[in-house]
Amino acid sequence: MRNLTLLTDFYELTMMYGYFLHGKKDQVATFDLFFRPFEESSFCIAAGLDQAIEYINNLHFTDDDIQYLRETKAFNDDFLNWLKNFKFTGTIRAVPEGTVVYPYEPMLIITAPICEAQLIEPALLNIINFQTLIATKARRVCHAAYPASVLEFGLRRAQGPDAAIYGARAAVIGGCTSTSNVLCAQMFGLPPKGTHAHSWVMSYPTELDAFMAYADTYPNNTLLLVDTYDTLRSGVPNAIKTFDYLKSKGYQPIGIRLDSGDLAYLSKEARKMLDEAGHSDCKIFASSDIDEYVVQALKQQGACIDIYGVGTKMITSNNTPSLGGVYKLSNLLDNGVNYPKMKISDNPIKVTNPGIKTVFRIFDSLSGKALADLIALQGETIDTSKPLTITHPTERWMQKTITNFHVEELYVDVFVDGKQVYTSPDVYTLQANCQRNLDRLWPEYRRLSQPHNYKVDLSDKLYQLKQTIIAQELSQNK
Amino acid sequence: MRNLTLLTDFYELTMMYGYFLHGKKDQVATFDLFFRPFEESSFCIAAGLDQAIEYINNLHFTDDDIQYLRETKAFNDDFLNWLKNFKFTGTIRAVPEGTVVYPYEPMLIITAPICEAQLIEPALLNIINFQTLIATKARRVCHAAYPASVLEFGLRRAQGPDAAIYGARAAVIGGCTSTSNVLCAQMFGLPPKGTHAHSWVMSYPTELDAFMAYADTYPNNTLLLVDTYDTLRSGVPNAIKTFDYLKSKGYQPIGIRLDSGDLAYLSKEARKMLDEAGHSDCKIFASSDIDEYVVQALKQQGACIDIYGVGTKMITSNNTPSLGGVYKLSNLLDNGVNYPKMKISDNPIKVTNPGIKTVFRIFDSLSGKALADLIALQGETIDTSKPLTITHPTERWMQKTITNFHVEELYVDVFVDGKQVYTSPDVYTLQANCQRNLDRLWPEYRRLSQPHNYKVDLSDKLYQLKQTIIAQELSQNK
Repeated sequence: MRNLTLLTDFYELTMMYGYFLHGKKDQVATFDLFFRPFEESSFCIAAGLDQAIEYINNLHFTDDDIQYLRETKAFNDDFLNWLKNFKFTGTIRAVPEGTVVYPYEPMLIITAPICEAQLIEPALLNIINFQTLIATKARRVCHAAYPASVLEFGLRRAQGPDAAIYGARAAVIGGCTSTSNVLCAQMFGLPPKGTHAHSWVMSYPTELDAFMAYADTYPNNTLLLVDTYDTLRSGVPNAIKTFDYLKSKGYQPIGIRLDSGDLAYLSKEARKMLDEAGHSDCKIFASSDIDEYVVQALKQQGACIDIYGVGTKMITSNNTPSLGGVYKLSNLLDNGVNYPKMKISDNPIKVTNPGIKTVFRIFDSLSGKALADLIALQGETIDTSKPLTITHPTERWMQKTITNFHVEELYVDVFVDGKQVYTSPDVYTLQANCQRNLDRLWPEYRRLSQPHNYKVDLSDKLYQLKQTIIAQELSQNK
Repeated sequence: MRNLTLLTDFYELTMMYGYFLHGKKDQVATFDLFFRPFEESSFCIAAGLDQAIEYINNLHFTDDDIQYLRETKAFNDDFLNWLKNFKFTGTIRAVPEGTVVYPYEPMLIITAPICEAQLIEPALLNIINFQTLIATKARRVCHAAYPASVLEFGLRRAQGPDAAIYGARAAVIGGCTSTSNVLCAQMFGLPPKGTHAHSWVMSYPTELDAFMAYADTYPNNTLLLVDTYDTLRSGVPNAIKTFDYLKSKGYQPIGIRLDSGDLAYLSKEARKMLDEAGHSDCKIFASSDIDEYVVQALKQQGACIDIYGVGTKMITSNNTPSLGGVYKLSNLLDNGVNYPKMKISDNPIKVTNPGIKTVFRIFDSLSGKALADLIALQGETIDTSKPLTITHPTERWMQKTITNFHVEELYVDVFVDGKQVYTSPDVYTLQANCQRNLDRLWPEYRRLSQPHNYKVDLSDKLYQLKQTIIAQELSQNK
């Protein structure tokens, strides 16, 4: 397992040193990891917790790490010696992977001595931001493609090996059926997918030779790439000859793959040609610069595509290649007293919510669908026997009263006093969790463009706390 | 060292198996790794070769890998046994990292038994695509910022740990002075950079308490983040008090960092306040959603920023988060005879160049500046004693004749018959190579918007070969 302990920003270490020198290293702080409104999607699919757990469990400074830090000349020996026994002793609550999360809802809540909580900030953000970004993007692509399925093909254009491996994992959580990436498949128990490339065809004297050689290699799994020379005049006719041959020997070919040209036109023509040749049972795969918008446009034009192979634009979240997740101090514990903290900013979207929090998702008991989320202070309860009034988080006059509902808290305990108490399920279980989360949202919230505005409100108690702190801070710092 | 042997697309393995079954596994193939016209920049800065070398050297199938492949039921025992002794035995030529490269110029040229050459395609593309993308982006940001310097700050928003580590490495090759990422700094011998975050300030009763505590921790390295509460009314005045104190004790503070708000306005106001307080020697750092366009706009408004901290938009290459590098068959060796290969496509930009190639860069001997590049067949030479006529690659009537020039080939031998024969220099040496490459381009080619069109031509011999093959293929596949 890689030692990622130094996968941190240098300022975390200089702050740790400052806290250490000033007797504050054991002060217990709570940080929320959350994202602000995200232009690509009104909600995200949480992912990456499993890798965050692995990272936390493996936190330790090796002798080499400490020697390296010594050479920066930024730290004294007491501090460097203290790092030798450094480990995570805190508590982490988190939403399970596959959960639908909205802006400002903490995805992870970390409570730990401040030095520990600071050190892990950049790596946690790195891991959770990226996988959540890709699971969210994959959800969109799969939503557009449904009922066609989507395979993840992005290895060669992913932003490095980890992006390929963990991006593919996240894509499966978000709904992809599997990946072409063998290492990811091996690590997470997925069936690796793929057949052949243009170079296979080009290495034979003719396209038909290449197809027949492939059919000979995988008679039960023949999927032929038909666009090396000319899709409709050469590729599809040669594929049909190969399929005729295979069926004459009692084998069932899979189909063809289109990887260039106009996928709507080519897929419709290819479908006709296959059908007329008696191969209605052969499927059409399509790849080539596909994202959710391309899928929607192709479907609108009646493209005959059964399975999409999606690479570059999904594995990089092409339109918005970063999720701006942040990690903000929400509470300090001093001599047994909690001091809720918040960041105030001239920019309202950057104002944070103070205190140690939880999130309730409120479901309509009749339909089973989610009605709203309520960010509340930890320990608050909701009396489901009484009507509940949901209030807009800033426009307090906008209210809605609901009855006949039940609530679920979004969190699981992941670490308690440094001990791991939660184990991530396998990736297909997480995918099922994602699907269950999506099923419990009205379709209007799942729409890709201009989805209906889901309500995420603050409890009255949290709202009052926030106003009180804002008033205090403004009077103090003027 | 991580075993990335299975970091490949499954179709590479199924093709390898096909070649193995059909007696073609030892056929020697040549592949070019290159990119097509890239919307973000007219040229790229090559990067990632060092990690590609490490990957190639570490190629091997472990017993676990082979057992895993057996379980896919896609391969027979002969093949799986053969994989046990698999290693790379081929030859790789490459442009050194930091080199300016243009579309269609091979960055790597791989000649190896076809099974070896296929297996490594996805990982090589993954590694080279990403680092080249980020070095190219960093070059643009540094170009805009010059003479201000640029620090890489992208860890928390990078697409996974590798993207953070190798993206920061690539950013330094492209011109950044260093990174905040401690693990990257440790791995590549860079000085890690950073001071403190908002949470440091929020953990103290007042901003001034926090600043004084930081100054006490790092009296010789005090850089204060001034935007936690109110930059001009609280942050800068408190920083000035802290700097006054430090100077009274004989220390030299570094300066302040702005991380939100209007950086042009705030930096100018902060500069005035610092100057009036006698701190003209204190620098202003700025961070917050910066890219080359923001830098240009800030400079145009006279922002007083000495150092830029650039994160998200550089580490993800925000506008175009993938470089579409491809890996295309250019030659097959059969019974000692070379058969040049090329991919023909309806889309002219997807047509490849056949044969084993090289690239000459042609320099004006008077100015030392590059005049054009010439993609040629390996073994071609250029007689620099005679005038040279450069021809447009497709518009053959566009010609230019040059005299008094010298030429350089862009490549180094990296692997010969499986043995590594080239060692990457350290990152700052690669950065210097990049700078030397840029210095030898006229400024008109380096401009960020609408740079002058640099000429990349084909030698007459390569041009003729390409026409011949196109004619043959079109007649054969109709």
